[in-house]
Amino acid sequence: MKIIIINGPNLNLLGKREPEIYGSQSFEDYFEKLKAAFPQVELEYFQSNHEGALIDKIHEVGFSYDGIILNAGGLTHTSVALADALGGVKTPTVEVHISNIHAREEFRKHSYISPKARGAIFGLGLSGYKLAISYFLENL
Amino acid sequence: MKIIIINGPNLNLLGKREPEIYGSQSFEDYFEKLKAAFPQVELEYFQSNHEGALIDKIHEVGFSYDGIILNAGGLTHTSVALADALGGVKTPTVEVHISNIHAREEFRKHSYISPKARGAIFGLGLSGYKLAISYFLENL
Amino acid sequence: MKIIIINGPNLNLLGKREPEIYGSQSFEDYFEKLKAAFPQVELEYFQSNHEGALIDKIHEVGFSYDGIILNAGGLTHTSVALADALGGVKTPTVEVHISNIHAREEFRKHSYISPKARGAIFGLGLSGYKLAISYFLENL
Amino acid sequence: MKIIIINGPNLNLLGKREPEIYGSQSFEDYFEKLKAAFPQVELEYFQSNHEGALIDKIHEVGFSYDGIILNAGGLTHTSVALADALGGVKTPTVEVHISNIHAREEFRKHSYISPKARGAIFGLGLSGYKLAISYFLENL
Amino acid sequence: MKIIIINGPNLNLLGKREPEIYGSQSFEDYFEKLKAAFPQVELEYFQSNHEGALIDKIHEVGFSYDGIILNAGGLTHTSVALADALGGVKTPTVEVHISNIHAREEFRKHSYISPKARGAIFGLGLSGYKLAISYFLENL
Amino acid sequence: MKIIIINGPNLNLLGKREPEIYGSQSFEDYFEKLKAAFPQVELEYFQSNHEGALIDKIHEVGFSYDGIILNAGGLTHTSVALADALGGVKTPTVEVHISNIHAREEFRKHSYISPKARGAIFGLGLSGYKLAISYFLENL
Amino acid sequence: MKIIIINGPNLNLLGKREPEIYGSQSFEDYFEKLKAAFPQVELEYFQSNHEGALIDKIHEVGFSYDGIILNAGGLTHTSVALADALGGVKTPTVEVHISNIHAREEFRKHSYISPKARGAIFGLGLSGYKLAISYFLENL
Amino acid sequence: MKIIIINGPNLNLLGKREPEIYGSQSFEDYFEKLKAAFPQVELEYFQSNHEGALIDKIHEVGFSYDGIILNAGGLTHTSVALADALGGVKTPTVEVHISNIHAREEFRKHSYISPKARGAIFGLGLSGYKLAISYFLENL
Amino acid sequence: MKIIIINGPNLNLLGKREPEIYGSQSFEDYFEKLKAAFPQVELEYFQSNHEGALIDKIHEVGFSYDGIILNAGGLTHTSVALADALGGVKTPTVEVHISNIHAREEFRKHSYISPKARGAIFGLGLSGYKLAISYFLENL
Amino acid sequence: MKIIIINGPNLNLLGKREPEIYGSQSFEDYFEKLKAAFPQVELEYFQSNHEGALIDKIHEVGFSYDGIILNAGGLTHTSVALADALGGVKTPTVEVHISNIHAREEFRKHSYISPKARGAIFGLGLSGYKLAISYFLENL
Amino acid sequence: MKIIIINGPNLNLLGKREPEIYGSQSFEDYFEKLKAAFPQVELEYFQSNHEGALIDKIHEVGFSYDGIILNAGGLTHTSVALADALGGVKTPTVEVHISNIHAREEFRKHSYISPKARGAIFGLGLSGYKLAISYFLENL
Amino acid sequence: MKIIIINGPNLNLLGKREPEIYGSQSFEDYFEKLKAAFPQVELEYFQSNHEGALIDKIHEVGFSYDGIILNAGGLTHTSVALADALGGVKTPTVEVHISNIHAREEFRKHSYISPKARGAIFGLGLSGYKLAISYFLENL
Repeated sequence: MKIIIINGPNLNLLGKREPEIYGSQSFEDYFEKLKAAFPQVELEYFQSNHEGALIDKIHEVGFSYDGIILNAGGLTHTSVALADALGGVKTPTVEVHISNIHAREEFRKHSYISPKARGAIFGLGLSGYKLAISYFLENL
Repeated sequence: MKIIIINGPNLNLLGKREPEIYGSQSFEDYFEKLKAAFPQVELEYFQSNHEGALIDKIHEVGFSYDGIILNAGGLTHTSVALADALGGVKTPTVEVHISNIHAREEFRKHSYISPKARGAIFGLGLSGYKLAISYFLENL
Repeated sequence: MKIIIINGPNLNLLGKREPEIYGSQSFEDYFEKLKAAFPQVELEYFQSNHEGALIDKIHEVGFSYDGIILNAGGLTHTSVALADALGGVKTPTVEVHISNIHAREEFRKHSYISPKARGAIFGLGLSGYKLAISYFLENL
Repeated sequence: MKIIIINGPNLNLLGKREPEIYGSQSFEDYFEKLKAAFPQVELEYFQSNHEGALIDKIHEVGFSYDGIILNAGGLTHTSVALADALGGVKTPTVEVHISNIHAREEFRKHSYISPKARGAIFGLGLSGYKLAISYFLENL
Repeated sequence: MKIIIINGPNLNLLGKREPEIYGSQSFEDYFEKLKAAFPQVELEYFQSNHEGALIDKIHEVGFSYDGIILNAGGLTHTSVALADALGGVKTPTVEVHISNIHAREEFRKHSYISPKARGAIFGLGLSGYKLAISYFLENL
Repeated sequence: MKIIIINGPNLNLLGKREPEIYGSQSFEDYFEKLKAAFPQVELEYFQSNHEGALIDKIHEVGFSYDGIILNAGGLTHTSVALADALGGVKTPTVEVHISNIHAREEFRKHSYISPKARGAIFGLGLSGYKLAISYFLENL
Repeated sequence: MKIIIINGPNLNLLGKREPEIYGSQSFEDYFEKLKAAFPQVELEYFQSNHEGALIDKIHEVGFSYDGIILNAGGLTHTSVALADALGGVKTPTVEVHISNIHAREEFRKHSYISPKARGAIFGLGLSGYKLAISYFLENL
Repeated sequence: MKIIIINGPNLNLLGKREPEIYGSQSFEDYFEKLKAAFPQVELEYFQSNHEGALIDKIHEVGFSYDGIILNAGGLTHTSVALADALGGVKTPTVEVHISNIHAREEFRKHSYISPKARGAIFGLGLSGYKLAISYFLENL
Repeated sequence: MKIIIINGPNLNLLGKREPEIYGSQSFEDYFEKLKAAFPQVELEYFQSNHEGALIDKIHEVGFSYDGIILNAGGLTHTSVALADALGGVKTPTVEVHISNIHAREEFRKHSYISPKARGAIFGLGLSGYKLAISYFLENL
Repeated sequence: MKIIIINGPNLNLLGKREPEIYGSQSFEDYFEKLKAAFPQVELEYFQSNHEGALIDKIHEVGFSYDGIILNAGGLTHTSVALADALGGVKTPTVEVHISNIHAREEFRKHSYISPKARGAIFGLGLSGYKLAISYFLENL
Repeated sequence: MKIIIINGPNLNLLGKREPEIYGSQSFEDYFEKLKAAFPQVELEYFQSNHEGALIDKIHEVGFSYDGIILNAGGLTHTSVALADALGGVKTPTVEVHISNIHAREEFRKHSYISPKARGAIFGLGLSGYKLAISYFLENL
Repeated sequence: MKIIIINGPNLNLLGKREPEIYGSQSFEDYFEKLKAAFPQVELEYFQSNHEGALIDKIHEVGFSYDGIILNAGGLTHTSVALADALGGVKTPTVEVHISNIHAREEFRKHSYISPKARGAIFGLGLSGYKLAISYFLENL
């Protein structure tokens, strides 16, 4: 089973950016723990601040991988193109947000990604990624 | 660890209601599987079609239980009173929806519950409940 | 043929509440006339001010009765849960309103019930219930 | 008792237009059945695709007939002038729609006609016209 | 000087329609008084309930007459086509409404006609027509 | 003089729920003080988390009591049925809110109750109830 | 007959301000012409850039004068207090605007004044004032 | 204890303006009664139709008085500057409206004042002022 | 192959109306050129300022012609009835607008016609009609 | 004559992505046919999923090429920057969409591109590109 | 070079009002520093809480001074009349706000002043005034 | 002191793009003047049409530089991701726009950047950049 975690803009700042919202652990460190926790999964990680690079990656993996876990960051609320990319590929996606996007600014309540994803997990911190992998493990 | 799953209106129809959206398994059957899967958790289940009964139950468990898993059904989108109940108790809540509420009618995109919950899982079928329990197990 | 008339909040006040809008006849009196007018129909009546009780009743009758005639009162405009109950059962529903809800406050123009009902009759006074029964008689 | 059925734009296509929504019977055929069913009523039928012709007809009958049954078709949602015509005459109107206009496009939920009509029947197919006549028979 | 008064839908009912709003004088009677009051003006009158006929008339007079006085009735609020007709001809228009359209339903506050007219007079009863003629007399 | 105080959902948590907004005194304690302060008034108290129970109570007292003091909690912003209950009875109502609902979330600024009440008092803490009783004492 | 013309903010700049919209004549000059044209009317003029002063003036004249002609300038679109002043006095008001406020910025289409005035004249330049006096002369 | 009542635009018309909404007593008369009813309070009264004068007065008293009772009239709905004045001083404010502003025009439901006040009383007639004084007496 | 071009209100003014937007050529002249350019197509032209006449024409041709090219003029933005006519017939439609309707007033951005047409061409001047014919030639 | 076709995000998936909406032909194949069909045009093709790359390309060609044919994909609805790029160069643009964007999700009805383009063609499949080239051939 | 700084409502409270937002320095003190910093500029200062007085002042200086620096305080968001005053004079204006009005309440994001000003500076504290003077020095 | 000027999409066209709005000087030329004017500042310049590249740059400089001057061009109004980048770093930002964005299209009035910036300067041409540097010089 091949699963890719795709993180969008600013998630490379994890651990540095607004730690009161996002925690103080870098995603790279967390990713190592994830790989250790799921030895049976071929787990990959990709991060970019470029919408286009995220779309390119989705196209690249979207016809062969078993699952995409996408945290599109701020693009969640503004990118039709990214949502269209999910709609254009075959691999199912689970949307993840670390923070509770419904308890923040009004504009963070709308997601272009959600209708194109199988489902979403938000507000459960980095655990959201882990739960998404568990979901794929049980349901694919 | 004591966790309660609270299901709101119409979730008693699970297995009978719109199976193309919600699947054909009754929640009672699924609940037995959940208990078997998490022997270390004291797991309880409550369902009601009455907003008031849901609020009463939240008040009852909300100062002593470790976690609430709430699928408020249609009340998700309309009940300030239910959201206030969550805001008034101490036990943290994870919101669950079986279907992808962002891929259905427009009015299902708004949740009064979400800002008062720690986070939410939607669109991942009955697995959402299981993932919510896993979340509590790891993060409490 | 089994048909149930379900009246929601405040319709028990009929005859007492705002008679300039709703008339001065109690529904119980009218119901006796209805039964006399349709001896061939097994006609039942249920009224509650509790959203949950209305949903319970719809679940109870919604897989065996031939028709539901629902006047959800003020819940018409606010209850997704009640509409979901209609969507979850098999019995077809005709929505009835005694007054012309489109000639009153703006918020009464929106109905969560209508899209889940087969159709609706409003503004025709108590006759609306009678016409709804006629509809079921001719079309089931 | 003189009652006129006035059908607006595109209802002349009945039986040809989108039969999955409107059925496959022509209105002329149905009108013959209606006349047979209500021998005691002087029943008239008028159809036009011209807003102005509909207004002219309402002015013509609106001070002498006992009832108008109006299905304004697409003009329902856009014509203040037609609604004003109803408001300018004495004969009461019952609005009829064959399909459930609340279960279709968003813009079909708004009716300029409804506030000027005594009431409305929608979603009950061609039976709506019959029920409207019954209403006039009992309530005039 | 040639001036035409063009009245739209339902203004033929003047004197019959909602006299508490529009008064009880027919427009034909009033028009005779107008002609007597302005012997120096070649005054014409046209009324139709047909949007298309109003547009045709505007095209017909709009390159040779000195002024158009237009009361478009309910079309004021809904007809882009009528407004476009004014925008397509050379003769200037003064918009007139008998009633105070800003003191009635919300939808009567918006006029497609106003931006294409030189100006408007509303709420001053039938005097509005007279004042409009005075305006043309002084300003052309 | 008979006056009833009716408290809606979550007000039973008073003293426990968000004390920084609602204070730390239970309503039962406060009610004892109120009774002592107004010995000349027959004062009653009813609380429920059930919309239907609140409506039932309003129907029960609404034709014989002298005043209703209603704090509908979260139902204030969502319940047409509750507002209709007030509109259907004879006893006048004063709406009370402990917190300043206009200084909190946007959705708390809208009240279905207010237009059906004689007036409202909000933001003045538990004193609001006392002032409401004073109002009835002086104005009935 | 006593009539007062009340001009609001910036109308003292007439002749200097945006002459392509408002013309190049000062209002004082125009007022002299008006007085000459209506010798039978006791005509008064008041201008202020102060909302409060305009309200004071309306209170002062509003129980004894026969007519108020009000061009409230920018306050038209923002001052509930000024509109309330008109609603609080007995003298009828005609609202006047020199420019076609419906052909300018979107926010100029809304008037708090109009619903409290008998009617309005806009877009007809300074003639609007003259027509308003004519209206009072004929209709009082 | 020093308390000032500040009344905004048009409240000087009290007793004259729309008595069916505001009653027929002048505020000056009522103020004498208030002073008699609260001999222990140093009570002051200020009214102006000028937003600026109201702000000046709030600045003048807002660092030394114990309470402000503000009925800002029509400025309630439009004046950010007045609300900012309250936000800029130390004295707490209770907002009062004589009529039920939620049962009138839509635009009267929004108050810039409320979020900056401690609370508000509306719809309880002149008693609202008295209740506000009582509030300050008990809670300061 | 039979194709009809149907032009709506005011397009008969082409060459006379706002030539800076629509050009100075009459449609009749242009139509002659079109016929010359497509000798293999049976090309027809119909123009009316009457919504009803346009609907009648669509009904007349809509079950036998191969293509409709419709420029509904101002009705584009307001006529549900016209859109319903397209939805009720079998012949496919291409919508054409001479000007760039998205670069003009806000209300011209919405088209009731577009969702019922196969597609649309706008802003390309009279060439739009030619391109529409080319489309039908290649794709039918 | 030099013309460039610029395709935005996800159009590289053409033939693979949602073929029921976009068809099953790759754009590269279609482009070969286009070049064969227009031997007199110097035709270029550029596709990128990167907004920035599309803007760079527009800057590069926008002062020397004769025409740009732009299908901005999902960026159509969200990218002010791309629209500004068109507004900043000299070469005219024709906007093309393969599907009927007005018959899909609501958010696809709004285009930032359209007001900066000369015109647009949508819903006519891949033919849209061909028609756009024809337009440039005839009108440049 | 003559420049006037005009401060609107509540800016006289500077140093006293919400110092966490506006700082604790009085404007008079700061103005002395400004004069010292720009000896080459004839610098004037005017503050009023009266909209009308601000308009009067703008009229007074607006045809002879070289620059206006306007901080309209709360009137920024509500006063069309003040904006019209700027539009009616010749002197250019730079709008200044001490706080970041885009990081506060939603209603502070809209400014009637901005479109009539040459530009604006906000969020940079009292330095905003200094920068505005520098702008005039370099650009006039 | 290290300050970076970051310019977003299309600002590389400065001098070429819409010179009536943005002037005819290239930014590179202007930047040389800026460096000459502020020899005490280590001044850097970065421009990109790629949102991702702008975010990358902000991350790179945002923990070590003293100030960011950001003109995000069209991304100002659409990019949550860019705003999040500012929120994720430590260096303070001043937002600059050359043109008066409040005097142009409606959508340019909204900025995602402003709430995350310390403040903004717009409409003051290229001087805005200079003023922003002055601000940092005085306030850091």
